[in-house]
Amino acid sequence: MTKPPRKQASSLGTDLQLAANALRLKRLGIDTHQEAVIYMREDSPICRAEGFAGQTRIRVENAAGKVLVATLNLVTTELLARGEAGLSEMAWSSLDARENDLIRVSHPRPVESLGHLRSKIFGEGLNEQNLTAIVTDIRAGRYSDIELSAFVTACTAHALDLEETVAMTKAMVASGEKLDWGHRPIVDKHCVGGLPGNRTTPIVVAIATAAGLTMPKTSSRAITSPAGTADVMETLAPVALDLATMRRVVNDVGGCIAWGGSVNLSPVDDVLIRVERALNIDGDGQLVASVLSKKVAAGSSHLVLDIPVGPTAKVRDVAHAKRLSQRLSSVSAVVGLNVRIRLTDGQQPVGHGIGPALEARDILAVLQRKPSAPSDLEERALQLAGDLLELSGTAADGAGTVMARGILDDGRAWQSFESICEAQGGMRAPPVAAQRHPVFASRNGFLTGIDNRRLAKIAKLAGAPFEPAAGLDLHLRIGSRVSTEAPLFTLHAQSIGERDYALEYLETQPNIFTIEDEACPR
Amino acid sequence: MTKPPRKQASSLGTDLQLAANALRLKRLGIDTHQEAVIYMREDSPICRAEGFAGQTRIRVENAAGKVLVATLNLVTTELLARGEAGLSEMAWSSLDARENDLIRVSHPRPVESLGHLRSKIFGEGLNEQNLTAIVTDIRAGRYSDIELSAFVTACTAHALDLEETVAMTKAMVASGEKLDWGHRPIVDKHCVGGLPGNRTTPIVVAIATAAGLTMPKTSSRAITSPAGTADVMETLAPVALDLATMRRVVNDVGGCIAWGGSVNLSPVDDVLIRVERALNIDGDGQLVASVLSKKVAAGSSHLVLDIPVGPTAKVRDVAHAKRLSQRLSSVSAVVGLNVRIRLTDGQQPVGHGIGPALEARDILAVLQRKPSAPSDLEERALQLAGDLLELSGTAADGAGTVMARGILDDGRAWQSFESICEAQGGMRAPPVAAQRHPVFASRNGFLTGIDNRRLAKIAKLAGAPFEPAAGLDLHLRIGSRVSTEAPLFTLHAQSIGERDYALEYLETQPNIFTIEDEACPR
Repeated sequence: MTKPPRKQASSLGTDLQLAANALRLKRLGIDTHQEAVIYMREDSPICRAEGFAGQTRIRVENAAGKVLVATLNLVTTELLARGEAGLSEMAWSSLDARENDLIRVSHPRPVESLGHLRSKIFGEGLNEQNLTAIVTDIRAGRYSDIELSAFVTACTAHALDLEETVAMTKAMVASGEKLDWGHRPIVDKHCVGGLPGNRTTPIVVAIATAAGLTMPKTSSRAITSPAGTADVMETLAPVALDLATMRRVVNDVGGCIAWGGSVNLSPVDDVLIRVERALNIDGDGQLVASVLSKKVAAGSSHLVLDIPVGPTAKVRDVAHAKRLSQRLSSVSAVVGLNVRIRLTDGQQPVGHGIGPALEARDILAVLQRKPSAPSDLEERALQLAGDLLELSGTAADGAGTVMARGILDDGRAWQSFESICEAQGGMRAPPVAAQRHPVFASRNGFLTGIDNRRLAKIAKLAGAPFEPAAGLDLHLRIGSRVSTEAPLFTLHAQSIGERDYALEYLETQPNIFTIEDEACPR
Repeated sequence: MTKPPRKQASSLGTDLQLAANALRLKRLGIDTHQEAVIYMREDSPICRAEGFAGQTRIRVENAAGKVLVATLNLVTTELLARGEAGLSEMAWSSLDARENDLIRVSHPRPVESLGHLRSKIFGEGLNEQNLTAIVTDIRAGRYSDIELSAFVTACTAHALDLEETVAMTKAMVASGEKLDWGHRPIVDKHCVGGLPGNRTTPIVVAIATAAGLTMPKTSSRAITSPAGTADVMETLAPVALDLATMRRVVNDVGGCIAWGGSVNLSPVDDVLIRVERALNIDGDGQLVASVLSKKVAAGSSHLVLDIPVGPTAKVRDVAHAKRLSQRLSSVSAVVGLNVRIRLTDGQQPVGHGIGPALEARDILAVLQRKPSAPSDLEERALQLAGDLLELSGTAADGAGTVMARGILDDGRAWQSFESICEAQGGMRAPPVAAQRHPVFASRNGFLTGIDNRRLAKIAKLAGAPFEPAAGLDLHLRIGSRVSTEAPLFTLHAQSIGERDYALEYLETQPNIFTIEDEACPR
């Protein structure tokens, strides 16, 4: 083959002002969610010279040599002057851009890992090298939303096997920061979500740190649920801690409850979670890789896992729970984590509140030993805290829960929790929703079943987790006597639009609550 | 359950100016490709009241009651004044919007068919009702790009079975216009792409219409290839015919070669094709549904299918070709099409040119009986035209190709083609690229193999099909003697950037052409 003519790459980053294909940035202030988008005039000479056209991905480089790949949106009006380009807010901040900065645009190299993605779509397996290439390209922002969606979908359609899950976990760890605390044990807990209100983490962290353990807890925001632990905790204290702050907090008070995304642990996970949330899917392999990569990156050595099992929880039956446990144990062993897995009752929501602020209120009630504290939330937290005390060698086998209860009862846990909130930036009161609407049962009887999924959907339609005060407050539990005179639950929303939106959906779903003549007909 | 408070829907479309949630449209002129996007101020009271937030899909209704669902992009600057909203160009034209039009925004109803999509991702089958719901929602613009990508990926990962393919075909037909020509036979041909330069359609249409057959041909633009028939034909005459124009052309001259997208036949197919192109995937089930839905919608009764088979063609081996033929025959039978399928040699490109204008030049050479006409293109076209003459009863079995050759040789085919071009809006000369770069072999010997896929990629990197003049011109065929003195092919590009982009890729791919010491070593 002939040599290609002079490579364009040679002048990159050196004399950008003089280089061809330079454009001046104008801040349009368009937030496209996490997709990097570049806005260019349709009639710009660069578009013509480079042959940029619809659906094109563009390589953008600034004067400091920082590079990203963005999707091209063409502008047909005077929104941009000649010689100007805009960036979506995500692209703007990832280039640390300022008004009138010069950038240079060019064709990106073909993203080779898209070939692996296509293989996966057609059902071929991915090895560690393939997955590392994919994760590296996602990390570098080289995947468009369409490509990210295809990756998430393909990994759900052809579930990641053990080897792929291990490789994905390692690749995700390698793509971000990894913490080293200089000592062991570093304890952690995680709930494989899906059960509304199951917000034991802040209580477990409070107990564990009060017992002298180090627990630098990072949590996700909600994927497909009305609240993630980070969303709940954020109503009580800042959670978007940078790495330095997180280190300081943990050194000072023994633990933290931070949002994983802002400390840059496993950053690819946050990109995938955004797409998983949009699609409302969350396959086992991705789930394991997501959970364990965060733990390894956080420097954890000992991990307790809570898997709620119930007909409308994320894990619907014991067979699935066992497969998932097996996968979690196998991958943990390979990546060097000690785990204990507990299957818990996933029949109905835990506590009263569903939604960030309402769940935070329940947590405070438990820690402050209020009579209104939901006992199911308390019991679950004590059990998991006990497991952690035993797994880490702090309590003898079988004595963990009793030790945990002592720490909760004598106020040390609450004290610990207050210290953590203060260290994270100051404790605050969870917000209360502007709209509160009681919902009544259509008949008298006994509550014999709750559809967690559709109940969670009501909370989401009411605005959770984006509106932290939104969600719902359950007044009854399975086995309770139900009357048409007392509300089943109270819907909380910040706006009338959201309240009505949730209520309209509720109207079409008469069977979220099963009400029968006998308390336990089966 | 309690009644929801007063439904908001009641005031829709009646007194929009007075209604809540009204915004004034400002044309931003942003072309987001086919995704509907709405731009709203982050601090707008409507965003707060309705709880619109990141990644939200918004229902947009204009004063005439036209509705679409758009993805929300928030604007943090003074790009929009208070009370203003912007729309992407696709959304703007689909609402027939004008500056200062009032729109009303609200939460869309949950898209119920997304539940079917999720089932498909997890490997469950889809019935006709499910697929109709999905296609209807896609048609109505209710799927975001992330959701469209998940659908395309899921239907490739868990290949559509026969029943699903039939259902998908029917749903796609039902989603668009369906033509009725009032008589039979209506003939058609289709090539299951993947072989660069295999552009027989315009020649077949010219012969068939010269023989008195009715052939209202609609073609796609390229999906994953450097040119589709519509792209090629567009360099010779307008192809974006509306339905009325297409009817007039066919009534006047017996046939046409139009772009399927602009006559609104199977419009969902065009949406899916955009995503398939971005992902570079095109599964069998979708392929069959895409092809046959277009044929049924076009009112065809008799169809000849060309399936090129070769190691680097879309269909790589005879086993796959037979499975695909089986599927095409079965679905054709259910939807009432008479088909004849021909497997053809897919070892190497057909003709000399690859790319819209270069392929058009080859077609003209065949029709005008020029000595430079590529004989392989001519032979293939005659064979398929012969099949069509036989299948439709115009020629006796076995006599079709001879009849076709007579029509080509005596100039009737060329005459017919000229009439079609004139009727479609006037014949024009294909453009010639500004940059032409010869590429030489690295050694002497014989050409024994060509990698069609990577060769097609070179043509695409050079700008095809978006730049119609771009592509490449092959100077040798398998079996030819190769010398380092004469070019293997000439690269055509409109810009230096694209030329270099293609050449840089070429540099990394030394084995696109296999050159050996013997002409036929195997």
